[in-house]
Amino acid sequence: MVFQEELTISTSRHGEMNDLTESVIRIVEQSGIQTGHVHIFNIGSTAAVGTIEFEPGLREDLPALLDRLIPPSPQFGQEMAWHYGNCHSQLQATLLGPSLTVPIRKGRPALGTWQQVIHLECDTRPRERTIIFTVMGQ
Amino acid sequence: MVFQEELTISTSRHGEMNDLTESVIRIVEQSGIQTGHVHIFNIGSTAAVGTIEFEPGLREDLPALLDRLIPPSPQFGQEMAWHYGNCHSQLQATLLGPSLTVPIRKGRPALGTWQQVIHLECDTRPRERTIIFTVMGQ
Amino acid sequence: MVFQEELTISTSRHGEMNDLTESVIRIVEQSGIQTGHVHIFNIGSTAAVGTIEFEPGLREDLPALLDRLIPPSPQFGQEMAWHYGNCHSQLQATLLGPSLTVPIRKGRPALGTWQQVIHLECDTRPRERTIIFTVMGQ
Repeated sequence: MVFQEELTISTSRHGEMNDLTESVIRIVEQSGIQTGHVHIFNIGSTAAVGTIEFEPGLREDLPALLDRLIPPSPQFGQEMAWHYGNCHSQLQATLLGPSLTVPIRKGRPALGTWQQVIHLECDTRPRERTIIFTVMGQ
Repeated sequence: MVFQEELTISTSRHGEMNDLTESVIRIVEQSGIQTGHVHIFNIGSTAAVGTIEFEPGLREDLPALLDRLIPPSPQFGQEMAWHYGNCHSQLQATLLGPSLTVPIRKGRPALGTWQQVIHLECDTRPRERTIIFTVMGQ
Repeated sequence: MVFQEELTISTSRHGEMNDLTESVIRIVEQSGIQTGHVHIFNIGSTAAVGTIEFEPGLREDLPALLDRLIPPSPQFGQEMAWHYGNCHSQLQATLLGPSLTVPIRKGRPALGTWQQVIHLECDTRPRERTIIFTVMGQ
């Protein structure tokens, strides 16, 4: 059995983190699937999906970490060619990854109490994001 | 077809790496699934699942790398608010990711000879970990 | 429904990036699956699969970033024991990850216009790589 749904979110800035957990729970419930998994995917190469405790400190710590490890730079090959100013956004999103798969157990995503599913905007300007949820199982 | 099983492991310290490969092979065999994939997921936001050669050197090199890139710091937003001392654990686990999906070919996980499925404890204290294996296919 | 196919590619050097997008689209079409997802997996622990804009600048920026964050070093535990010279390859591949899952919507992988599926060779010598594509859905 397969169940798919899309969600659109508007992000306003680089490093904005949004909590997708309630959407994941709702979509899994709608699917009626009791055992299986749900795949959450961001369309586009400058935002990421992952898991962390969604909490005011970490909401800033994760994008700050990515900015420290992968700061913007005019020396990136893509910047020298195109001057988009968001080459670091691409690299941050690639490293964190565009998707996450969470198992479903007894009709619910099997997440820890302090483990949320998050979307992280890595681009340098506001974006309209489409997230696809694909639920599979029985 | 869907087959799901849980495994509990006890970890004793930050940076402890455990080899899950034998469990993955066994659970795939039990499922009877010949073609498909197996998803391995750690419940909780301070441990990771991934793939590497499970070997004494790399067992230390991977957690040492994560500690170099993401060292503990009292300056993290979460630490300033809560003083848990494990904010770097969250960030390390988020970067490596909580899960891995491996294809199943002819009834076996299609891994390389020196490619093991590993669990990495990123938290700063001993933990009881639940790992969910979800096998899908036919 | 499950559909699986393998692809072999020859890589010639550390940091070589190959675009797998056309293969992903073709294999999804061959599967006939309209709604579901496709999982792309590199067998072996020294290469990675991910998503980025496949473009001449980023083709060099991503491996350069990984070499900056995780440079070769004789101090790695694995190097001191074995002197393979590719311990950084293992760590780079582990951090980026060996696989990617992309949702299928209306019979096509739901990728952004500038979002390609890529294979990144992290090893220090030419390799023959087997990539397994597993399509699931209905």
